[in-house]
Amino acid sequence: MTDTITERIPPRSGTAFTLKHGDLLTVIDPEGRQVSDLVAYSAHDTEEHISSGRSLDYAARMLLTTDDILYSNRSRPMLTIIADEVGRHDFTLTPCSKDTFRIIYGDEEPHRGCQGNLEEALAPYGISGDRIPIAFNVFMHVAVDPGTSAIKVLPPLSKAGQQIVFRAEMDLIIGMTACSAGESNNFSYKPIDFQVTAG
Amino acid sequence: MTDTITERIPPRSGTAFTLKHGDLLTVIDPEGRQVSDLVAYSAHDTEEHISSGRSLDYAARMLLTTDDILYSNRSRPMLTIIADEVGRHDFTLTPCSKDTFRIIYGDEEPHRGCQGNLEEALAPYGISGDRIPIAFNVFMHVAVDPGTSAIKVLPPLSKAGQQIVFRAEMDLIIGMTACSAGESNNFSYKPIDFQVTAG
Repeated sequence: MTDTITERIPPRSGTAFTLKHGDLLTVIDPEGRQVSDLVAYSAHDTEEHISSGRSLDYAARMLLTTDDILYSNRSRPMLTIIADEVGRHDFTLTPCSKDTFRIIYGDEEPHRGCQGNLEEALAPYGISGDRIPIAFNVFMHVAVDPGTSAIKVLPPLSKAGQQIVFRAEMDLIIGMTACSAGESNNFSYKPIDFQVTAG
Repeated sequence: MTDTITERIPPRSGTAFTLKHGDLLTVIDPEGRQVSDLVAYSAHDTEEHISSGRSLDYAARMLLTTDDILYSNRSRPMLTIIADEVGRHDFTLTPCSKDTFRIIYGDEEPHRGCQGNLEEALAPYGISGDRIPIAFNVFMHVAVDPGTSAIKVLPPLSKAGQQIVFRAEMDLIIGMTACSAGESNNFSYKPIDFQVTAG
């Protein structure tokens, strides 16, 4: 029997770790209404990464949930969503960054954002900032106006303690954050918890 | 005075070429209802590429048109749309590929698709297939059901001779196709024309 340890990503920070094929990754919103940007790379060749474009195309749906597969840029399954208590995530936007805060928020001394946090966390795996693709933004609530196509980032639908579970379909390097953008979590920066369960 | 030469991309094929900062690129649908997948890289560092996630985030809109900017993964402007006679393009899906035809269409001997065509066209620039991001899919008409989020690929709205014009905001390598996917052009494979005008 394996003990499952809950790890915490502090507010406005990020981490990286590996998963073995078959492992389960549970992402928990401990306080509610927080977002976690998740990226994935093949542990054996980091040129293979999560691809929103392929995943959305193959699902033929913009919003992914239980039983949907996150594919790589080589069209191979990387992660399957096997349980999802929230059912609302985003797979269209890149991690928030210094430039996001500068361009969208007009900040003069912008925070490095999820992009900066992922860059630091992924550097030991030899993955540069240029290789951070569109993330699977867990719990991120992006609404699109069907008339104008305007994007609105709304507070997440996640309540305290709700979770989503992924199964690793190959050996993976995962990068994950507790999101740094005010808009995506109602301007209340919070932690994210996660658990890895051996498959 | 510079003569503008119209070049043709034959049906189900692709090409690559460079633009200088300030050059104009006109993409023309000569017969109507055809799609061209367009990708862009900095000519000075091909690690910098077009990024749908950043562009949509900064535009705060899913559908881009005149005056919108296509940003790079480094949040720098790559191309500005300066004229657009069609007004409907897609910036969410990856180029169709062998895998697209296998997974979505169930083809047993699948065509290499826009992905394969872009790989061949970009190889001389040292850009591998893994580095082909979500394309700006010129004239591609993707409809999203506001209730279910289901994606439907519909025939393009482009009529014969209609065009879109981009201005290069840096020196660029461009990859472009005449799309190979039946769904995106109503199963009538057609050419795409383009012109480069020195800035």
